[in-house]
Amino acid sequence: MYDPLLLPELREMLIENDARAMQEFCEVFHPGVVSENLEALSVAECWSVLSHTSLTRRVEVFEFLTLPRQMELVATLDKKDLSALLEAMASDDRVALLKNMDQAKVELLLPLIAQAERGDIRKLLSYPEHSAGSIMTTDYASLPEGVTVRDALAQLRTQAPDRETIYYVYVIDDARHLHGFVSLRKLFLARPDALVSELMDKDVISVRVDEDQEVVANRIARYDFIAMPVVDDQGRLVGIVTHDDVLDVLQQEATEDVHRLGGVEPLEDGYLSTPLITLAWKRGIWLVLLLVAGFGTAAILSHYKSETQKSEWLVLFLPLVLASGGNAGSQSATLVIRALALGQLNRETQARIGRRELYTGLLLGATLALMGFTFARFYVSTADAAVVAGTVALVVTFGTVNGTLLPIILKQLGMDPALMSNPLIASLSDMVGVLIYYNVALLALGG
Amino acid sequence: MYDPLLLPELREMLIENDARAMQEFCEVFHPGVVSENLEALSVAECWSVLSHTSLTRRVEVFEFLTLPRQMELVATLDKKDLSALLEAMASDDRVALLKNMDQAKVELLLPLIAQAERGDIRKLLSYPEHSAGSIMTTDYASLPEGVTVRDALAQLRTQAPDRETIYYVYVIDDARHLHGFVSLRKLFLARPDALVSELMDKDVISVRVDEDQEVVANRIARYDFIAMPVVDDQGRLVGIVTHDDVLDVLQQEATEDVHRLGGVEPLEDGYLSTPLITLAWKRGIWLVLLLVAGFGTAAILSHYKSETQKSEWLVLFLPLVLASGGNAGSQSATLVIRALALGQLNRETQARIGRRELYTGLLLGATLALMGFTFARFYVSTADAAVVAGTVALVVTFGTVNGTLLPIILKQLGMDPALMSNPLIASLSDMVGVLIYYNVALLALGG
Repeated sequence: MYDPLLLPELREMLIENDARAMQEFCEVFHPGVVSENLEALSVAECWSVLSHTSLTRRVEVFEFLTLPRQMELVATLDKKDLSALLEAMASDDRVALLKNMDQAKVELLLPLIAQAERGDIRKLLSYPEHSAGSIMTTDYASLPEGVTVRDALAQLRTQAPDRETIYYVYVIDDARHLHGFVSLRKLFLARPDALVSELMDKDVISVRVDEDQEVVANRIARYDFIAMPVVDDQGRLVGIVTHDDVLDVLQQEATEDVHRLGGVEPLEDGYLSTPLITLAWKRGIWLVLLLVAGFGTAAILSHYKSETQKSEWLVLFLPLVLASGGNAGSQSATLVIRALALGQLNRETQARIGRRELYTGLLLGATLALMGFTFARFYVSTADAAVVAGTVALVVTFGTVNGTLLPIILKQLGMDPALMSNPLIASLSDMVGVLIYYNVALLALGG
Repeated sequence: MYDPLLLPELREMLIENDARAMQEFCEVFHPGVVSENLEALSVAECWSVLSHTSLTRRVEVFEFLTLPRQMELVATLDKKDLSALLEAMASDDRVALLKNMDQAKVELLLPLIAQAERGDIRKLLSYPEHSAGSIMTTDYASLPEGVTVRDALAQLRTQAPDRETIYYVYVIDDARHLHGFVSLRKLFLARPDALVSELMDKDVISVRVDEDQEVVANRIARYDFIAMPVVDDQGRLVGIVTHDDVLDVLQQEATEDVHRLGGVEPLEDGYLSTPLITLAWKRGIWLVLLLVAGFGTAAILSHYKSETQKSEWLVLFLPLVLASGGNAGSQSATLVIRALALGQLNRETQARIGRRELYTGLLLGATLALMGFTFARFYVSTADAAVVAGTVALVVTFGTVNGTLLPIILKQLGMDPALMSNPLIASLSDMVGVLIYYNVALLALGG
């Protein structure tokens, strides 16, 4: 964990050029801890610290650095050192880095990388973003079906050094068709002359290479796996996705949803690493759209000019009425969007949700109308307060139903339901709210 | 993964009372898959299916059921069967279930459970909710320091059957002080006569038992661990938190934040499993609070009655002006709240964030003001449009700063920053927006 005392010590080692201390620093601490401290140093200082340890360890630390930092570091490497680094990296981290590099530069680099690794890189680079293929690693442990536990353990010992995990082992045939799965725990506890084919689970839960990363993440979370196999459309094993990558995916997807809900286009980097102008842009596009919606509301309001002149008190409760509808709608949209993201809703449950939200809306609308009436009576006549109350009941019910249906419709159109952000729901609610408010007033108080 | 064809088959097995098929069903499929299908059956049918497999397997399947389902199932067991089930369950899942049961019933049950397990349960029940202690399991694998790899592997073989994981092994002394950590992978690859003390990592990243579960989750996510040791304030190992529990925590915390942001008190169960009345209550309390805020806005508006009478056009742009401030504020609050949840912000970066958001606010305010002016000119005079533009610039800037500071202040008060929901930020923004709007109008157009 982050120890604020390590960084000053590390700076001292650099000043004194203490090679042994730097080597120890790289090797005693967890690579993640080493990388945290490197984030605060200059690029030259980073390489200076890392030069004191083995390539294997250097790569381990490097893989824990943030992507922007990795980019800064590789920019200063010559092609020979860079290709050596890339060859040693885990296949998924390597591809994540290459995807962010200048593609012309990548093409110049590839010929320097060993043939086998090169093929692997090209293949992984070809999978679309956010697919299972784009986050998987090809460094998985595998076994043929016919071997005994003794032979299996011997084979795993040779595979272990460059595999992402050896705790989950996949049983495949010569054509790489996935036939089974066995954990190291099971192998470790079995009789040495037992057959792997007797031990293995034959009902392997896997994911197709083109499925969305969210599907992989939800499935690993559901079944508590350390890793999940990724297969092509012929059932051949092409890679695995590991638990740590799934954590990243879940955090990333949750962040994306949260940002969308708040009316911000999702940021790709952390909040502080996003340039100010990008941040302003990702917010500005939504604010401009919402401003246009605001003028829509103004246009509707302008139709009720005479009504406004006659009943001036109407304006007092205008913000309140609009906010009630927007708030109720935001709540519904938030609940539905999150339930959709967690895979809790499906086609069968949709009718049930619609009913639930309608009842909730009516119940909440009635409660708020009653409270609204009581409060409004302090300012206006009973008849006027009844207009406020009636409007609140209607806008809350409408907002609730609206906030429920819009994300579901987006989902069915194949779009991200989280696009129905709280501000957008509120804006739509504003327009409808004005219509309801003034029409209730006209109806109740006479045209 | 969920196969819609399994359930009809299972129902058929029940009708035909096909014992062998039911046993196979329980044992061939992943326990998570079995449990998914059991969710759709009646309680009696569930027990009927599960009676055809071993206690070990029955418990594995049971642990994958949702908590409400588990509660329904245990309600029908007699005390003897229930205590046998509890004894066989993993310590963390068991405590999660007991916490949800009637405490009087738990006290009647405990004497029936073996002494050792009983002590474990009492201990785990005592940790506060959302602490590391409340999600950890005590079924960890451990080794003394002095042993060779050969002895270590032999000891792990005997520990394996009832340990949550044997892939991460903790090295402790007689008083259970944590001295090191070694992975099964490392042991598996080492020479049999090497000493565990030579192989182990001595800089063990751990978490204190009273720390928040979010800290555990972020740390496991950061360092890619399969499990993390939990220690007491004397550095003694008391349990481990495993990767799968961390996934649940992260999803749960993200859901909580999303719900709060949308102005809903976090739901404890899934959206569809929450009773309608609970749902209405968790939304209603916020809606009522926001309604009261709406009357605050009405009170402020009532002070500007004469202004409204003189410049009737002001009401046209009231919703727009208020929405602009609320939207900009919601964006800032959303970004800051998410960054706080991910641990991306700390005391040092706070000043930087304040500056960033101020600049962003000014930039966005200026852009929207310009657009607002252009649109408003279609309805009103240049001077009036300038009032709208000036107000938009001010409310956007104010909203941005407000949306940034309020969550940070809440955090520093030790409260959940996500309480600053989008609707609440919008409500606060409404009040200030009215003040700004009418004062700019008074100032520009003469009192």
